[in-house]
Amino acid sequence: MSKRQLKLGANLNGVGNSIAFWRHSEIPTNASVSLEFYKQQALKAEEGKFDLLFIADGLYINEKSNPHFLNRFEPLTLLSALAGATSHIGLVATLSSSYSEPFTVARQFASLDQLSSGRAGWNVVTSPLEGSALNFGKGEHPQHALRYEIAEEHLEVVKGLWDSWEDDAFIGDKENGIFFDSSKLHTLHHQGKHFSVQGPLNVARSKQGYPIVFQAGSSEAGKELAAKSADAVYTAHETFEEAKAFYQDVKTRAAAYGRKAEEIVIFPGIGPIVGRTEEEAEQKYQRAAELVDIDQALNYLGRYFEHYDFSQFPLDEQFPDIGDLGSNSFRSTTDRIKQEAKEQGLTLRQVAFRASTPRSSFIGTPEQIADRIQAWFEGGAADGFNVRTVVPNGLADFVDLVVPVLQERGLFRKEYESDTLRGNLDLPIPLNRYTKSEEAV
Amino acid sequence: MSKRQLKLGANLNGVGNSIAFWRHSEIPTNASVSLEFYKQQALKAEEGKFDLLFIADGLYINEKSNPHFLNRFEPLTLLSALAGATSHIGLVATLSSSYSEPFTVARQFASLDQLSSGRAGWNVVTSPLEGSALNFGKGEHPQHALRYEIAEEHLEVVKGLWDSWEDDAFIGDKENGIFFDSSKLHTLHHQGKHFSVQGPLNVARSKQGYPIVFQAGSSEAGKELAAKSADAVYTAHETFEEAKAFYQDVKTRAAAYGRKAEEIVIFPGIGPIVGRTEEEAEQKYQRAAELVDIDQALNYLGRYFEHYDFSQFPLDEQFPDIGDLGSNSFRSTTDRIKQEAKEQGLTLRQVAFRASTPRSSFIGTPEQIADRIQAWFEGGAADGFNVRTVVPNGLADFVDLVVPVLQERGLFRKEYESDTLRGNLDLPIPLNRYTKSEEAV
Repeated sequence: MSKRQLKLGANLNGVGNSIAFWRHSEIPTNASVSLEFYKQQALKAEEGKFDLLFIADGLYINEKSNPHFLNRFEPLTLLSALAGATSHIGLVATLSSSYSEPFTVARQFASLDQLSSGRAGWNVVTSPLEGSALNFGKGEHPQHALRYEIAEEHLEVVKGLWDSWEDDAFIGDKENGIFFDSSKLHTLHHQGKHFSVQGPLNVARSKQGYPIVFQAGSSEAGKELAAKSADAVYTAHETFEEAKAFYQDVKTRAAAYGRKAEEIVIFPGIGPIVGRTEEEAEQKYQRAAELVDIDQALNYLGRYFEHYDFSQFPLDEQFPDIGDLGSNSFRSTTDRIKQEAKEQGLTLRQVAFRASTPRSSFIGTPEQIADRIQAWFEGGAADGFNVRTVVPNGLADFVDLVVPVLQERGLFRKEYESDTLRGNLDLPIPLNRYTKSEEAV
Repeated sequence: MSKRQLKLGANLNGVGNSIAFWRHSEIPTNASVSLEFYKQQALKAEEGKFDLLFIADGLYINEKSNPHFLNRFEPLTLLSALAGATSHIGLVATLSSSYSEPFTVARQFASLDQLSSGRAGWNVVTSPLEGSALNFGKGEHPQHALRYEIAEEHLEVVKGLWDSWEDDAFIGDKENGIFFDSSKLHTLHHQGKHFSVQGPLNVARSKQGYPIVFQAGSSEAGKELAAKSADAVYTAHETFEEAKAFYQDVKTRAAAYGRKAEEIVIFPGIGPIVGRTEEEAEQKYQRAAELVDIDQALNYLGRYFEHYDFSQFPLDEQFPDIGDLGSNSFRSTTDRIKQEAKEQGLTLRQVAFRASTPRSSFIGTPEQIADRIQAWFEGGAADGFNVRTVVPNGLADFVDLVVPVLQERGLFRKEYESDTLRGNLDLPIPLNRYTKSEEAV
């Protein structure tokens, strides 16, 4: 297959990223802490030849948080458990660079990567929620720019630790008692502004070299970090035009760092609603929206704005002017919400419902959804898609109904090309930095 | 079965805790990073109705480190992967309280506990290796007493976070849209000398309440921490007398904290060498010892003493006087080594070989080993044993040959009593602190 191939991720999220998803009769109320539920989803995604499972995360809750966030698995332990249940699909865990130690992060991901024989990925986030600081003994949540500065150095240290052992370091000569070649063990000695880490790491690289690095922020700083250091980007866009502008922006930035366009894979997130007919799809959306009540929708909206209390405003008047609020948390989302409200003259009620039950533009029959996917993919707005479940059986519907259409059109694989995540994403194995410099000698 | 029952742990360690174990022809040289190898060991231990798998850990290596330490799985990711492959055996991971955040530790263990439906355990260590500080941006490794002070507060915070959700907090009333009862969600607000952690935790308790807490240091501070806060103790003793003195010391200390003797389970570590005959067992030990060379043995010994270079001393003279060296790292081990060398007039060569290939006193036929186990168990020196593999197939030999003898004698279970670790250890489920105070009202 020489034709460029679409990539697919499954964003698994237990009882769902929406407030009311858990109320569906088909969703187990303990889905967020049910290994069985996750296993079924993982196996379904693997049946559909998806590239990866994607697990989002957060480090702060309060009584207003979304049900899924209150009681859920921690991503690295969850994906380690799923490693044994699956054989080809990638395992991408979200972990914050603002509240973690590079040595521990490098080690746990390298361990997952070995456990899964080269299927791990790290989605680097900087923790948008201010409250996270309170759970980690910090007086203050670092500001947006500082968080990205920390993230950049953190990632640099982690990659340095991943290169501690050259790929041929372990000899295992039993007769002569030589376990490893000490000239192939390297100590990082990193001394930076935010981290001092000596190394070496006590885990070697897997056969994919490094775990795949995802970046998921769409702010300027996020795009810059992605362009410089990430293998893949998870992003969110409502329209083709926005997605295309973002896509081209990131690819242009990557080129400025001397990277090829195909070395960074861009995955917009979508929440497809598939029906056998348009009406069936529309009914599925309506049933989902009806499960939310307005108080919940206001709470949900407030979460993006530092847990702001929107209930103080009238529901059916113009969305209130809240100034800069939200610019230090989910900046790209809050900017978009404010802009749309202004441009389209939305009321607070409308904004809250849109935020709590977004009506995906990927709604319709399998062919309609495949058309839209193809248009984004071929039109320069996406290399792949990260599929979120927004209606019950959303993932299964996508695998059973949409994937075959994409396969028939020659856009998506019928069999895995590789048993590593990097191999399936068609990304090159990074040479160990020390091996490289030796070859140059 | 009303007779008091023995408990058994399997201390899994890839290519082995000895320097030369990996040189055995039957040991895969990649055992420390082979999920398949660990799975086989785990299933063998479960076949033998062991209570738990125990994974040791360390945070610092250099080129002199033991082969197993150079490149191994991180314990939490490894045990999460093994959770899916097993159904009854407990999963105990070592993690340092000196270089971790209580929120992350509480969360990852709670997640493993949910993934395994109540089989997780945390072996709290304070990191004996000075070099660990260099991997975590600390100028200095905290002194022994300070490390234990930190450990005590860390554990207090973790247990507090584990109580964030009362056991009946999640209602899941789909019709009325009530996911949880907010009066059953509790925020810790811990403000201490070493940690400030607000909470609540975003994972609920499993059906065993908390993960089991192990403590593994045998110093004064270690025993005190165990007596106050641990469910189980992993210790190391050469002789029955030492083991008994330790056992009674810890039980007495626990009583001083108002705890019953059976609320703290003491597991000496043993490295049994089982032969069908005494001669076969002896041959197995000899073959193991012959794989070590003297330079390796000196390096290995040095590791306990802050990587001290013992090669500067003559091999066949009295073990040198090295003063206080080693008292800030593996204190109980280094004290013992120095004391034995003095009392028994050992040479440096003898000390190094003993350290690198300890000749277990649990050596002999299945009946002889069962006799010794029974004597320690009934003589007040142990509640169970943590079985280390020191010869190839050591665990399988123990399961196939020794366990049946213990079962025939009525000392050890033939079937699991419970599917939680706490249940099998016969420990009570800790009441959630908030539920308790409500009941008192």
